[in-house]
Amino acid sequence: MDENKFGQLKKYLTNHVAVDDESFSVFCSKFKFRTFRRNEIVLKAGEICSYMYFVKSGCLRVFMLDAEGKESTRFLVFENKFGTAFPSFTLQEPSLASIQSLETSEVLYISYRDFQQLSDHFPGWEKVYRINLEKDYIESIKRIESLITVDAKDRYKLLLLNNQTLIKRLPSKIVADYLGISQETLSRLKSKK
Amino acid sequence: MDENKFGQLKKYLTNHVAVDDESFSVFCSKFKFRTFRRNEIVLKAGEICSYMYFVKSGCLRVFMLDAEGKESTRFLVFENKFGTAFPSFTLQEPSLASIQSLETSEVLYISYRDFQQLSDHFPGWEKVYRINLEKDYIESIKRIESLITVDAKDRYKLLLLNNQTLIKRLPSKIVADYLGISQETLSRLKSKK
Repeated sequence: MDENKFGQLKKYLTNHVAVDDESFSVFCSKFKFRTFRRNEIVLKAGEICSYMYFVKSGCLRVFMLDAEGKESTRFLVFENKFGTAFPSFTLQEPSLASIQSLETSEVLYISYRDFQQLSDHFPGWEKVYRINLEKDYIESIKRIESLITVDAKDRYKLLLLNNQTLIKRLPSKIVADYLGISQETLSRLKSKK
Repeated sequence: MDENKFGQLKKYLTNHVAVDDESFSVFCSKFKFRTFRRNEIVLKAGEICSYMYFVKSGCLRVFMLDAEGKESTRFLVFENKFGTAFPSFTLQEPSLASIQSLETSEVLYISYRDFQQLSDHFPGWEKVYRINLEKDYIESIKRIESLITVDAKDRYKLLLLNNQTLIKRLPSKIVADYLGISQETLSRLKSKK
């Protein structure tokens, strides 16, 4: 077992369940490692997303194009989190969204088929996955709430409160896009705070 | 075991896992039954949501008020589905959303504490819950996608495609509100199709 390669994944699991070395070893054998370059496209819209990614370092961005070709960031996956084009991966249907590596990103990735069988090899997985699914679902609900009820200024304040890292670490273009506002509005809000 | 009372819940489970009568009986003992009147408020924003609801008949609406007091429908729960103010229930924190019964609704409901322990009594529950969580999460992602990329006309078309029941069964006001468009725009779209 390569601690350096799988140490973060182990921590992800032990946050919620006990991990014995033998089943963890089988668990890890289902994952492969790779590095994406900065701005590399991981998945193009229209393709079926075959992999779930665990980000060891860097950041993946799930984004969509609207009818005018404008990009909208739907979801950001930072280190020590799982992420994918979720509907496409889970339903194995063509993805409406694309995935891009925003920074140089090191990931562990697992195929759809192996992912479906993870809980056979590692009984605690069902619980860990469910808990993190709840978190992602709540994040998406909060996103909907802010999109349908909150104006640009309050959306920025909410983001400052809930996710400072995102604002500090990512280019203004991406932050503006995530908030659904123009870069000019974002600069104005930043200078006002 | 009252088949009439718990038959739908049993079907919900047997869609995904095998159900033995003994553990199902313990499972059911955690639920209570009640009826909500048409338009009755089930949860007020600001309260902590204490219950998860399984709708036997009728429809629950999860909605929010924006700064101007305008209602926005976030989520609709029809029969044979579980629903709640999910972030509030799961995190046991005050809810941003309210819940209203749109029709006369018969529900089974379970407390937060009992819900957390369901998989101790009924081992298949973790899987059933996870599968339905995936569905709800995907629905919320599709909602975000339509809110950030799609215009009113296309949103209505998408809804026609994915959820005709909703359009047929609910008042225009609620449908318009769910789509984030005015009732006038909705009438225009309806007459054009």
